[in-house]
Amino acid sequence: SSGGGGGGGGGREGLLGQRRPQDGQARSSCSPGGRTPAARDSIVREVIQNSKEVLSLLQEKNPAFKPVLAIIQAGDDNLMQEINQNLAEEAGLNITHICLPPDSSEAEIIDEILKINEDTRVHGLALQISENLFSNKVLNALKPEKDVDGVTDINLGKLVRGDAHECFVSPVAKAVIELLEKSGVNLDGKKILVVGAHGSLEAALQCLFQRKGSMTMSIQWKTRQLQSKLHEADIVVLGSPKPEEIPLTWIQPGTTVLNCSHDFLSGKVGCGSPRIHFGGLIEEDDVILLAAALRIQNMVSSGRRWLREQQHRRWRLHCLKLQPLSPVPSDIEISRGQTPKAVDVLAKEIGLLADEIEIYGKSKAKVRLSVLERLKDQADGKYVLVAGITPTPLGEGKSTVTIGLVQALTAHLNVNSFACLRQPSQGPTFGVKGGAAGGGYAQVIPMEEFNLHLTGDIHAITAANNLLAAAIDTRILHENTQTDKALYNRLVPLVNGVREFSEIQLARLKKLGINKTDPSTLTEEEVSKFARLDIDPSTITWQRVLDTNDRFLRKITIGQGNTEKGHYRQAQFDIAVASEIMAVLALTDSLADMKARLGRMVVASDKSGQPVTADDLGVTGALTVLMKDAIKPNLMQTLEGTPVFVHAGPFANIAHGNSSVLADKIALKLVGEEGFVVTEAGFGADIGMEKFFNIKCRASGLVPNVVVLVATVRALKMHGGGPSVTAGVPLKKEYTEENIQLVADGCCNLQKQIQITQLFGVPVVVALNVFKTDTRAEIDLVCELAKRAGAFDAVPCYHWSVGGKGSVDLARAVREAASKRSRFQFLYDVQVPIVDKIRTIAQAVYGAKDIELSPEAQAKIDRYTQQGFGNLPICMAKTHLSLSHQPDKKGVPRDFILPISDVRASIGAGFIYPLVGTMSTMPGLPTRPCFYDIDLDTETEQVKGLF
Amino acid sequence: SSGGGGGGGGGREGLLGQRRPQDGQARSSCSPGGRTPAARDSIVREVIQNSKEVLSLLQEKNPAFKPVLAIIQAGDDNLMQEINQNLAEEAGLNITHICLPPDSSEAEIIDEILKINEDTRVHGLALQISENLFSNKVLNALKPEKDVDGVTDINLGKLVRGDAHECFVSPVAKAVIELLEKSGVNLDGKKILVVGAHGSLEAALQCLFQRKGSMTMSIQWKTRQLQSKLHEADIVVLGSPKPEEIPLTWIQPGTTVLNCSHDFLSGKVGCGSPRIHFGGLIEEDDVILLAAALRIQNMVSSGRRWLREQQHRRWRLHCLKLQPLSPVPSDIEISRGQTPKAVDVLAKEIGLLADEIEIYGKSKAKVRLSVLERLKDQADGKYVLVAGITPTPLGEGKSTVTIGLVQALTAHLNVNSFACLRQPSQGPTFGVKGGAAGGGYAQVIPMEEFNLHLTGDIHAITAANNLLAAAIDTRILHENTQTDKALYNRLVPLVNGVREFSEIQLARLKKLGINKTDPSTLTEEEVSKFARLDIDPSTITWQRVLDTNDRFLRKITIGQGNTEKGHYRQAQFDIAVASEIMAVLALTDSLADMKARLGRMVVASDKSGQPVTADDLGVTGALTVLMKDAIKPNLMQTLEGTPVFVHAGPFANIAHGNSSVLADKIALKLVGEEGFVVTEAGFGADIGMEKFFNIKCRASGLVPNVVVLVATVRALKMHGGGPSVTAGVPLKKEYTEENIQLVADGCCNLQKQIQITQLFGVPVVVALNVFKTDTRAEIDLVCELAKRAGAFDAVPCYHWSVGGKGSVDLARAVREAASKRSRFQFLYDVQVPIVDKIRTIAQAVYGAKDIELSPEAQAKIDRYTQQGFGNLPICMAKTHLSLSHQPDKKGVPRDFILPISDVRASIGAGFIYPLVGTMSTMPGLPTRPCFYDIDLDTETEQVKGLF
Repeated sequence: SSGGGGGGGGGREGLLGQRRPQDGQARSSCSPGGRTPAARDSIVREVIQNSKEVLSLLQEKNPAFKPVLAIIQAGDDNLMQEINQNLAEEAGLNITHICLPPDSSEAEIIDEILKINEDTRVHGLALQISENLFSNKVLNALKPEKDVDGVTDINLGKLVRGDAHECFVSPVAKAVIELLEKSGVNLDGKKILVVGAHGSLEAALQCLFQRKGSMTMSIQWKTRQLQSKLHEADIVVLGSPKPEEIPLTWIQPGTTVLNCSHDFLSGKVGCGSPRIHFGGLIEEDDVILLAAALRIQNMVSSGRRWLREQQHRRWRLHCLKLQPLSPVPSDIEISRGQTPKAVDVLAKEIGLLADEIEIYGKSKAKVRLSVLERLKDQADGKYVLVAGITPTPLGEGKSTVTIGLVQALTAHLNVNSFACLRQPSQGPTFGVKGGAAGGGYAQVIPMEEFNLHLTGDIHAITAANNLLAAAIDTRILHENTQTDKALYNRLVPLVNGVREFSEIQLARLKKLGINKTDPSTLTEEEVSKFARLDIDPSTITWQRVLDTNDRFLRKITIGQGNTEKGHYRQAQFDIAVASEIMAVLALTDSLADMKARLGRMVVASDKSGQPVTADDLGVTGALTVLMKDAIKPNLMQTLEGTPVFVHAGPFANIAHGNSSVLADKIALKLVGEEGFVVTEAGFGADIGMEKFFNIKCRASGLVPNVVVLVATVRALKMHGGGPSVTAGVPLKKEYTEENIQLVADGCCNLQKQIQITQLFGVPVVVALNVFKTDTRAEIDLVCELAKRAGAFDAVPCYHWSVGGKGSVDLARAVREAASKRSRFQFLYDVQVPIVDKIRTIAQAVYGAKDIELSPEAQAKIDRYTQQGFGNLPICMAKTHLSLSHQPDKKGVPRDFILPISDVRASIGAGFIYPLVGTMSTMPGLPTRPCFYDIDLDTETEQVKGLF
Repeated sequence: SSGGGGGGGGGREGLLGQRRPQDGQARSSCSPGGRTPAARDSIVREVIQNSKEVLSLLQEKNPAFKPVLAIIQAGDDNLMQEINQNLAEEAGLNITHICLPPDSSEAEIIDEILKINEDTRVHGLALQISENLFSNKVLNALKPEKDVDGVTDINLGKLVRGDAHECFVSPVAKAVIELLEKSGVNLDGKKILVVGAHGSLEAALQCLFQRKGSMTMSIQWKTRQLQSKLHEADIVVLGSPKPEEIPLTWIQPGTTVLNCSHDFLSGKVGCGSPRIHFGGLIEEDDVILLAAALRIQNMVSSGRRWLREQQHRRWRLHCLKLQPLSPVPSDIEISRGQTPKAVDVLAKEIGLLADEIEIYGKSKAKVRLSVLERLKDQADGKYVLVAGITPTPLGEGKSTVTIGLVQALTAHLNVNSFACLRQPSQGPTFGVKGGAAGGGYAQVIPMEEFNLHLTGDIHAITAANNLLAAAIDTRILHENTQTDKALYNRLVPLVNGVREFSEIQLARLKKLGINKTDPSTLTEEEVSKFARLDIDPSTITWQRVLDTNDRFLRKITIGQGNTEKGHYRQAQFDIAVASEIMAVLALTDSLADMKARLGRMVVASDKSGQPVTADDLGVTGALTVLMKDAIKPNLMQTLEGTPVFVHAGPFANIAHGNSSVLADKIALKLVGEEGFVVTEAGFGADIGMEKFFNIKCRASGLVPNVVVLVATVRALKMHGGGPSVTAGVPLKKEYTEENIQLVADGCCNLQKQIQITQLFGVPVVVALNVFKTDTRAEIDLVCELAKRAGAFDAVPCYHWSVGGKGSVDLARAVREAASKRSRFQFLYDVQVPIVDKIRTIAQAVYGAKDIELSPEAQAKIDRYTQQGFGNLPICMAKTHLSLSHQPDKKGVPRDFILPISDVRASIGAGFIYPLVGTMSTMPGLPTRPCFYDIDLDTETEQVKGLF
């Protein structure tokens, strides 16, 4: 049984719209076959038409989407180039040809492939190179997502295993099938003989024919009994040119023969190879033409897949199983017991693209801000803040509640969730604290990576901060030891005969009202104004920093070297997380915004009382360069494999104690509309939460949906009048035995913090972080009193001992609360004078009767107001151990006067911070620092004794 | 034509060595078939036997090699478990079964797969789970290298494309083919009908039959005309159990039927499914049995591939093409013009395994030290040092020669080569210098990554150094403000009722000769000796460091805070690269060695003149933990895609100015015996090279083969009496116009440096780094004089303007010189007294008449000798701008007395460093620091103006 035959010559020009180039040999039009050439052209037309429609549909929704097909060609096969060019144009597709010399080496071809792999404008890459160049190395250099000819192993594997919709099918093989079927051949049961095909083409032909129910056999030209096999076959497909010595007569008349030998692979179309004239001949030109069109179709589906990938996608998160032991082992044992997911796998699962992440080892990655641009039209998820009642010195587990909540939401309620935590300072890790990555079965893993160096953000802040500090002192020295002229010649030197201001110097000229750009035109007075910052050393507020607990640097004298010619002065070092640059990192929302903020940072006043900024010192660009990687949030995971951002860790007293705006914004996009982002505010709600609302939300413009207020029986007993709690000293028995009275009395602090939250119009869910020693009665009492005080709900949590499973109730309560409309509002309008803003916070939040400004504080407020900084929000630097300014006053102190001893400003971060009592900004090492227990097993490279 | 039939029942127990478990249905022995069961067993025996031999052969060469086959099983198919168990044992293979409950979810199975993927002991992983669990996600969670059943897309793609030797072939499919062929069936031309097979099994069956020249057709049980197709087939292969409703009679008597339906996929072997009794029936048990054996064979080849990967492999390096422009653009434009290779691709090309690298973003990766253990039996490549003549302040291009040489060797002579460079300090990058990553077309790329933060090694050193500094001062304060008893109680506190010494405290007790471990048994005197370090503040040599040019920290007073109760003292900050911890990082050869060196660092003397170490302060473990990632060398690449290590960057005056021993050791293994490692010594040869030989090679035990001595016409003219050269000031005309006399006179310095090299018995090749302004005559003169002075060869290099191509002559000369036997020797024996060692260096290397010790220097030498440090090598801290101690004395100064003003010691790094004149260890910022030009384009995130 033989099917109808192929098309004749003639009518081809119509489609291509121009005469075919004169090839030497006269083309004989052939074969009686029923179909007119137009019929064959109609398939090509159909394919191109269909591609065009799909493409314009895609472009309607995404106007910027202009897919590009790249073709690497070794050799000057200009006919193929024209065919591809015309078909692409007809389909509305851009095409680029990379023509390499015919004798290009494998390495040169791979060079081009690697470049196009990384070129985000190109969505499809095809190779038109000679057969022998199709080595394994060349084929698999191609990115599978761009392999529109379906030649890579992954594409072939998917095809033969039956995942045809997920891979690219070889256009040549598909063309063969379509041409046969379109010319009326029913392939079911037909005997197909594939002759002289190799590699991916052979595999694709076999697979497609099998899918059609045909019986296939694949042989080479030199196989024995070629003649008998040709004889037996219904259809013969030629994968490579028929060698001379094989007589034409071996092919039975009426056998359908398809010749795709001059296929794309060899690129030598129709130039002089013998034509086989038989009944059912389908010209090889038809195969190649249709294959070129089908490749365009593959291109369009590649574009569609790429676009779909750009949209926000449902998470395909694979959670890690937890087998909690009891009693609960140490944090480091739990952390080591779990094998974290490879971070690139996690990134892919939550919808991040490969070029949006920068891997740092196995378990950490930075996420590039470009994701915000890609998902800008995606609705945000729900925004949850975890705060706490006034804590004991031991801390009440806000981080573990944050991690427990996201483990519950995602690993147990299958809701997308992201935890956003602060990066801990490394100083305390070796001093008193050990690690801080949650605890028990609610942790960020691996714990060592979280606590040691992470990705170097704090190191970058230290480098930037100290460069600015060195620039200040050095500039004062140079100004004091050089004339205006000498200074000016050095600041604007002659380089290759030309004197030019650098950009940042031009900015300073503008600020000084000098509208000149030619250095030689400045008047003497202008030169002096430009060259001299005239910094008043006694007003320098910019301190050097280190991420080490070094008490001996709290108060020092610098500049005593003889080279500094007597320009010594009093100075100090702060802990690195207290640097204003950390606060800028936490509040910025883009690279440009960060650069502007860094430039605005005020480091001192000049002798006429005007603020001197980083811009004035010309160091803003360098600071931004040092911080260019630190601005990208760090991705890690929880014990149950759910995603966590660890980004920025500003101090919670002289700064606002919250992780970064950028991490929250990216997380809100990634979790999707039904998802949850859970972040944590440092210290008690009166400090961390107040600053989250009035400073962080004001900077980000984000609207919080729920506050989770963390309480512990231990802290409530302390507020109820229990004995004092000190770190490192065993707890007194009041805290380890049931004591309903103490708990009841202590709930006043919980009630006050609930009221504070309600000032901001956000529903609050109380999370009671349960310890082993808490009794049923105590737990029920707290929950009862919390609800009576206005909490939306109050839920005991057991994530410390069993992971996410222990906080499913909390997760449900939070989901409930988040469905309520949030009537969020700030506590005060920033335009109000500084002193009134301070008073509002003191009275409404802390419950003070009034505030009392020291003369120094009043003077500073006047200066900042005069300098135009009166409209900045307020960041109170107050003890966290009491609502009042006195650490030992527990519960809810009343009628106290809040003393403001001094007022300072972080203009770059954008807040004024009044000091309530003395604040230490450089912790010390205790007599027995925990580094005594810290060690490294040099065999296993494992850290011991750190936690 | 019907082939011989399958085997009967009976005789199977023999092989398995135990009774088959009683399954409900009585097994009817069947079929007249010729072959006895033993025949079929013989194939299985043969396969197992062959696997056993190959395995024992492999284990002969690698006794530690114990490959493990892991099988994840969902369901209690214990029969299969036994078969696998017995076959594995017979082949001498370990096997672990991971039994999951039958109803395990996809996620649980993937959980196990991910764990086994990372388990380096397991070389093969097979899944025995039910058909419906075989989703795309599960299949592709498997690591292709461990997929011994050949089910992943990559394995399938390779199989169908014809790369059978590089992939794993499905054991079931292979068993079907082998059983047929072994029972005499000739598959060529046979019609094969595959019924009811899916996914990877179907694809594998089709492919293997095609390879045998059969005609194949694949259908499902429900396909129309099933009966006629069954009728037509010579051989029928059942991929899934025959549904009830299909009558047995449809299968022609005499048709060979293979039933692999109870294959591994479903795991239900022989339990109750109907047996098809036909002439040529091959029991499914046979297929499964042989498949189990063939899987063992796949396991062995997986083991062989794994072992082969462990050995050193020829590089498959793909070099990046360079298209040099002229005039040569700026360094940053050249760096940006090239698309670097993805660093994981580079790592693979040079033979690093996936678990030996930790990626840091796209273009940097750390290499784990485990590679040294893997390649310990691999012979080292050739070891080349690049040094220079006494330089001008502008530097003579040692780094560019180093990079140019490796680009020439690898990209142009196809010889494996590795460059090992120092990490530059970040301080000068913002001060005077801009970047330092080579220059022109011989650079490390991307240049910004090289110069900014890199992977944070210097930041880690800063953190470790300053933790130790804080520990010293805090300990002095605590000892001065607490009684012995209070100190002791805090150092060895009661924890949960128990008092225990930590490990590092026990080490201190031992050092003090107190052999007690129970804290309560120490006498008063022992408590005091243990608790008090009794540090003499005036002898503290340990300084705090910052990686910032901050001149105002050169001399400071610390501890003036009131909390420090008057314990203020004079101190200083050094630049971070001057820290002894950097020198330790550069000289250490393992994690254990680094920990020991860190512990030995002497920070001060106690009041009885004894050295106080980091061990005494109990901080060694913490320092090692902070440095645990810094010890791994950083992998980057050159402009032409060849590998570079950037690791450690100690100062070249108060330290030895060479990159790390570890980077060189790893590189020497990776380049292989025919390869070259090229590293650079800081400053001139009299300093950097002398320290490379006497300190670095003494520590590493490596033997250098060649020294490349870099000279420039500019520097030679300076030595010949040319006008002074100062950074930032345009060169005088003597340097830009031909001046043969100046060059000839200047060559005395070149000759002296050649003689210095010959002291160490290593052949020297002079590399003239050619500048545009150098003339032909000048170049030829230098090369002529160099050869006459004993250089093995002297070659002009043009890598700056054309990349590797410009230094091919140098590469050839180096390869030549390296083939000569190296008679390397140290300059002095370390046992010789300190003062004699100093004198030897001064006289033999610098050409001094004698040395003159200041009283301070003499006192220090006596103290160090008394403290037992007399046998350490010497690291001279001398100016690099002259062979003598006076920077302005150019050429070869004679008969000068070398004044030694002071002598200090880096006991951890392991050298004594005499100070010749005053050394600054903290550079300052100039009036116009280059940060004025530095900026970040916030759109493209690109750094501007840094280089």
